Amino acid sequence: MSSISVGVLGATGLVGQSFILLLSSHPFFRLTTLGASPASAGLAYSKAVENKWKQSTCIPSSVQAIKLHECKPEHFSSCQIVFSGLDADVAGDIESAFRATNIAVFSNAKNHRRDPSVPLLVPLVNPHHLSILPHQQSLHTPPLQKGFIVTNANCSTTALVVPLSALQSRFGPIDQVIVTTMQAISGAGYPGVSAIDILDNVVPYISGEEEKMEWETLKILGGISADGKSFDNHSSHPIKVSASCNRVPVHTGHIMTASVKFSKRPPPSIDEVLKAFDEYVPPYLPQSHPSFASSDFSKIIPTAPPKAIHIHTTPNRPQPLLDRHLDKGASVSVGRVRECGVLDVKFVVLGNNVAIGAATSSVINAEIALARGYI
Amino acid sequence: MSSISVGVLGATGLVGQSFILLLSSHPFFRLTTLGASPASAGLAYSKAVENKWKQSTCIPSSVQAIKLHECKPEHFSSCQIVFSGLDADVAGDIESAFRATNIAVFSNAKNHRRDPSVPLLVPLVNPHHLSILPHQQSLHTPPLQKGFIVTNANCSTTALVVPLSALQSRFGPIDQVIVTTMQAISGAGYPGVSAIDILDNVVPYISGEEEKMEWETLKILGGISADGKSFDNHSSHPIKVSASCNRVPVHTGHIMTASVKFSKRPPPSIDEVLKAFDEYVPPYLPQSHPSFASSDFSKIIPTAPPKAIHIHTTPNRPQPLLDRHLDKGASVSVGRVRECGVLDVKFVVLGNNVAIGAATSSVINAEIALARGYI
Amino acid sequence: MSSISVGVLGATGLVGQSFILLLSSHPFFRLTTLGASPASAGLAYSKAVENKWKQSTCIPSSVQAIKLHECKPEHFSSCQIVFSGLDADVAGDIESAFRATNIAVFSNAKNHRRDPSVPLLVPLVNPHHLSILPHQQSLHTPPLQKGFIVTNANCSTTALVVPLSALQSRFGPIDQVIVTTMQAISGAGYPGVSAIDILDNVVPYISGEEEKMEWETLKILGGISADGKSFDNHSSHPIKVSASCNRVPVHTGHIMTASVKFSKRPPPSIDEVLKAFDEYVPPYLPQSHPSFASSDFSKIIPTAPPKAIHIHTTPNRPQPLLDRHLDKGASVSVGRVRECGVLDVKFVVLGNNVAIGAATSSVINAEIALARGYI
Amino acid sequence: MSSISVGVLGATGLVGQSFILLLSSHPFFRLTTLGASPASAGLAYSKAVENKWKQSTCIPSSVQAIKLHECKPEHFSSCQIVFSGLDADVAGDIESAFRATNIAVFSNAKNHRRDPSVPLLVPLVNPHHLSILPHQQSLHTPPLQKGFIVTNANCSTTALVVPLSALQSRFGPIDQVIVTTMQAISGAGYPGVSAIDILDNVVPYISGEEEKMEWETLKILGGISADGKSFDNHSSHPIKVSASCNRVPVHTGHIMTASVKFSKRPPPSIDEVLKAFDEYVPPYLPQSHPSFASSDFSKIIPTAPPKAIHIHTTPNRPQPLLDRHLDKGASVSVGRVRECGVLDVKFVVLGNNVAIGAATSSVINAEIALARGYI
Repeated sequence: MSSISVGVLGATGLVGQSFILLLSSHPFFRLTTLGASPASAGLAYSKAVENKWKQSTCIPSSVQAIKLHECKPEHFSSCQIVFSGLDADVAGDIESAFRATNIAVFSNAKNHRRDPSVPLLVPLVNPHHLSILPHQQSLHTPPLQKGFIVTNANCSTTALVVPLSALQSRFGPIDQVIVTTMQAISGAGYPGVSAIDILDNVVPYISGEEEKMEWETLKILGGISADGKSFDNHSSHPIKVSASCNRVPVHTGHIMTASVKFSKRPPPSIDEVLKAFDEYVPPYLPQSHPSFASSDFSKIIPTAPPKAIHIHTTPNRPQPLLDRHLDKGASVSVGRVRECGVLDVKFVVLGNNVAIGAATSSVINAEIALARGYI
Repeated sequence: MSSISVGVLGATGLVGQSFILLLSSHPFFRLTTLGASPASAGLAYSKAVENKWKQSTCIPSSVQAIKLHECKPEHFSSCQIVFSGLDADVAGDIESAFRATNIAVFSNAKNHRRDPSVPLLVPLVNPHHLSILPHQQSLHTPPLQKGFIVTNANCSTTALVVPLSALQSRFGPIDQVIVTTMQAISGAGYPGVSAIDILDNVVPYISGEEEKMEWETLKILGGISADGKSFDNHSSHPIKVSASCNRVPVHTGHIMTASVKFSKRPPPSIDEVLKAFDEYVPPYLPQSHPSFASSDFSKIIPTAPPKAIHIHTTPNRPQPLLDRHLDKGASVSVGRVRECGVLDVKFVVLGNNVAIGAATSSVINAEIALARGYI
Repeated sequence: MSSISVGVLGATGLVGQSFILLLSSHPFFRLTTLGASPASAGLAYSKAVENKWKQSTCIPSSVQAIKLHECKPEHFSSCQIVFSGLDADVAGDIESAFRATNIAVFSNAKNHRRDPSVPLLVPLVNPHHLSILPHQQSLHTPPLQKGFIVTNANCSTTALVVPLSALQSRFGPIDQVIVTTMQAISGAGYPGVSAIDILDNVVPYISGEEEKMEWETLKILGGISADGKSFDNHSSHPIKVSASCNRVPVHTGHIMTASVKFSKRPPPSIDEVLKAFDEYVPPYLPQSHPSFASSDFSKIIPTAPPKAIHIHTTPNRPQPLLDRHLDKGASVSVGRVRECGVLDVKFVVLGNNVAIGAATSSVINAEIALARGYI
Repeated sequence: MSSISVGVLGATGLVGQSFILLLSSHPFFRLTTLGASPASAGLAYSKAVENKWKQSTCIPSSVQAIKLHECKPEHFSSCQIVFSGLDADVAGDIESAFRATNIAVFSNAKNHRRDPSVPLLVPLVNPHHLSILPHQQSLHTPPLQKGFIVTNANCSTTALVVPLSALQSRFGPIDQVIVTTMQAISGAGYPGVSAIDILDNVVPYISGEEEKMEWETLKILGGISADGKSFDNHSSHPIKVSASCNRVPVHTGHIMTASVKFSKRPPPSIDEVLKAFDEYVPPYLPQSHPSFASSDFSKIIPTAPPKAIHIHTTPNRPQPLLDRHLDKGASVSVGRVRECGVLDVKFVVLGNNVAIGAATSSVINAEIALARGYI
């Protein structure tokens, strides 16, 4: 496969750094262009990020000398794809401008998530939502040939919907979900949470987070209308989601407890639920795709995890500290699957918020879009 | 009020240290006798506890020189009351032995909690359960005149049942509770949790804890049979409780998210729920008590908090770090009271696990038992 | 003693909050006026500080309704004293303006510390440096009658110089000090240190901190020239101080290891050093003061600790978690006093950076200035 | 190179787990045999270690099914080498027994470190000390042909002596070292430090640690007598080392501040010191070795780091969180090299206590011993 030139917007932030680590060693995406704020434009990446590099590996040598540009499309004309780690206060307009110049934008920002023509894509859950893209492109005047925006979901939502998707695809509609998150500090970006607020503490509130989890779940787990021009947001069988979101003193890894009630009566047994988790394969490709029959997508979707769900059987797992790096953070961990005395089943979910909860999702999304022919 | 001589069993442990701080400055309990393991017997308290004293205040000077005894009743013959901070592996038999010598035992250990003649007493919730004590005494041969055992509840259960009690007493039976706890390390005693297991981590499992929360809630919120000889364990209208218990890197203060469904339809509004929390007064005394009319119990139940429930209105409160010491940890904090998209109402609860969740409960229980004439 | 009206500048910050706790219950300072940034001016204190109050006790009820003013002298005309918790980027000019209107300013900011006419006052060490104040006032045109500025020292310096002062006053000049600090996050203000930077980490660098410790020590431990118009900055016998400053994940309490070499040969024994620490009494008052003979200064300098140095004898103390609140953080803890294989003696020092390292020092300084007749 | 069969003693502990990760993918050591306590003997490794595996990668599949044996030589007869991660309370005798059966023992335990015929080997510093081994073997009756014991040093000592060795080999004798450590919790093993003792805290004392650093440095940096039968422990030019050891809430990575005084006058400049660190190559092989001329030892000493010392130039580095995994923890990080106002030069050192400070050192030691012909 020949290489595809890609860029990163917001390259010096935490999400941008994750993009750089993923893309600097990518088998067919070739990282060529980096965008940052005007203050950093003109600087070499290693210079601009000097005191902001928060990764435990060094800045990749291939990236250190790349000069930073302002986040304007004219500097990215050689790129077919840009990955956006921009902050929400600027992401909306910049991403639209890139789309308008026929660049495919894979964004981690929240700005376009509620746009009815933009897929809210969790790669392990709803890759088929990419089919809305022709409609999205047709809304422009003149219609876009190549430009589009795909967003990934909130980091907590992402972890939750993977096991929910496994359950829904096996057992049909889910009626109710009560979820309590314990979220890592890296989810708030850098500098993000003050150490004074979180050391030896739990903060039982994250602004806007509960609303995101409750709403995004519907769009992600829902379908697409028959004409392919709108998301149904699960409106025919709404899932009631009640989220309580908390910040805990953990670097990375959002862990959550979830209780689920199925529409199906009687509900599936714990063994059936475990089997559904274990056998879950995300719909990366349509059945019509020549590679669909193969269960090995590692050549065409190389950043995807070997299995979407990692099931833990020891009772005190998953734990953020020990399990956040499984499959380089690209899979979701599930443990303690057991009956719930109020709803049907309850379990623990762990998702790596800086990997599958952020940059890793965007990169897999781009790989899928390429495999499905949208790029 | 003349002073009453009291002792502490397990005086060198974390709970024992809390007892010592509470009792060394108590208005009418006079701490005279301390019990510890045979290895410490004979040592002065300050010597025995030297490297185990984990409080941020010094060992009270009145206690430093007290010689430690083995936990045998003959050494405590001057005491009317003993408070037990013993570990569960020895507490059962020792507490029974003290009861048999007609000493009133207020225990923090779990051993006798499920005994159908022993009150599982959360002082802010079910002080009236003390009325089982004559029955408990009658079961001995010959019947005991003064000896009895009263236990307090698990630290997480204690925090949860206070707001539940406020709701039940105002709105009638509760049908369902889903609760997720984030529990402090001090709840596991000393040395308890290894730093390797909890720094930068959440452990989504605490052995036996979920079962305790799910079962104890029924005994505590339930009533007493007409003949006064048994607890009904809420059997006529069982509350379904589903608990998910987690350990977090916090020193002190168990915080939890709770969703509640009422039996009452339509359910109370959020404002009504807030009002119920705000106006909740624990039934410390029976209506027949001469002090019942007074709302100021500070003379006869001095360790009780001014108000049982402290309501927080800022959205990111309560927090363990900032709120665990309100009312010296004797009250329970509630915040974020709002509608639940699945059950009726949800909120955050914070209880100080080493105060109201442990020693403070036992001390208030003893004060109530004295006020009600059982001592 | 009649009350003295005082104000606080920078009242909503962390240092300002400490001032408010200290002053709202002060026996003779009466807190009347609060200053903050223009954005907060006009708001009630409780409203302005709502999400910034980081104390484990509630906002004092007497302060909640006080309206905030801009930090301009005209709003503080009723105050004889203002305490400044202003940030360094604005403190310099504002404090000068208050001094110019004949208000005594006790500042926690670094701006005026190097001014040769401003005392750098650690109340447990060099209260006699207040004698420079008439000279400071004479430098103004026309000379000031009442206005002056007194600064306290950097929080790390403050902890270090207390035991050094005890040694110098007993054994004569100190030649060399090598000190390594492990400093709490609250020393950086709020929001200050990002949790991402410090959780599970040590940062071996604090900008400007080592220079401050190395320089301030000389001014504080030095004397005053014969004409009373300048500090000698220990120039006749400079102490060589080499500091290595680190940030650690601790809320409050700067702990440090110090090695000291005396000028005196042979050096004092460990027992003599311990005795010097134990017997050290700060020179709060001049010998000519009527209260000098009394060792009980609690009436006239009520915020001063009972003893300046708290000596720990258990080998693993002092610890920030357990010892930072001794004497409400107004004293300095010293432990592990032992021989140093390279210099003469080494020991561990702990100082509460938000108490004696900040607001508490300013308040004691004001009490001393009052007792000495400068106010 | 053909493979060499090796075993691990104490395989279920933290150090044992590190050995297993290093050896399960080693190019020529083949891990065949695992020893543990009698309680675990007979269990498969994955079963025995189930709740004690504290690594962020899974148990290597090649090791999961290996049955555990008691730590008796008869079970390890197929091994030429055993690596010991035993606790000090049992390590001494067991290691001696293995040596007596002609197995080469590379130990992480402290028991034999002070034995005058046992090399205290930091692989990045004193590999030439292996030349004492024939003498060690000759002390047995009858003399051993293959059995010997090599220990590695204390984890803090190990980090310190690497830069000291670079300085000594370039500039000659070092006179004085004052070092303050901030040590990670994993240095105390599992369960080791209670979370109650270290969360939000620094403990300024680690039993025996300062003595180890002060003594081991002399043996490691010293030479060997002319007859090859004793270590000189630097007795002709003793280095005075004064250590202050602290425990901090960090998982992994001992960081320390060090001040050094050279014998050489005038002392080297900072630039010369930096150059010495940068150019330092450990004496892995004697000059007579055929591979000596090559600077690429990666084939014969594959676990050694590319460079022994990693120099950091940004002022706030190295940091445990960000830098502990550089070179898989096999190198030592040095930063903030600058003049010391009391001694000559000061700097910050970071060593990964579970890698180069423990198992990694033992494995490199074995690789060197093999290359040098002792195995």
